[in-house]
Amino acid sequence: MKARVHVMLKNGVLDPQGEAVRHALGALGFDGVEGVRQGKVIELDLAEGSSEATVTEMCEKLLANTVIESYTIELG
Amino acid sequence: MKARVHVMLKNGVLDPQGEAVRHALGALGFDGVEGVRQGKVIELDLAEGSSEATVTEMCEKLLANTVIESYTIELG
Repeated sequence: MKARVHVMLKNGVLDPQGEAVRHALGALGFDGVEGVRQGKVIELDLAEGSSEATVTEMCEKLLANTVIESYTIELG
Repeated sequence: MKARVHVMLKNGVLDPQGEAVRHALGALGFDGVEGVRQGKVIELDLAEGSSEATVTEMCEKLLANTVIESYTIELG
């Protein structure tokens, strides 16, 4: 089975990568870019029968720094 | 309007970050992790009326290195 985890910086945490992308898009002539946030996406290929609880544990222990990052899990 | 862009390394391109995550999950005792790919997710906050074609152009020009990376766009 596949699982996809999105890890984003929490709101209020400064996102210099996103800010750099926003600035670069403006410099390239793209108007109307009001905000950019950049995060990570991790695609896991898991053994059949793995549960969402296992993926949550992976996020808490390794994939996300829960002090400054939030995560969402999609199974499918 | 919001747009979300996923940028992943193409299949066949070595993904050392994903490989490091896979190894670390194994070391933490998570069995059955058969593969991990890590990519980027970029959330764009755009002016109303922006088109998917504009976001595609952003991907081609800046957000993805199309030689080694593929991208998908979700509007919403």
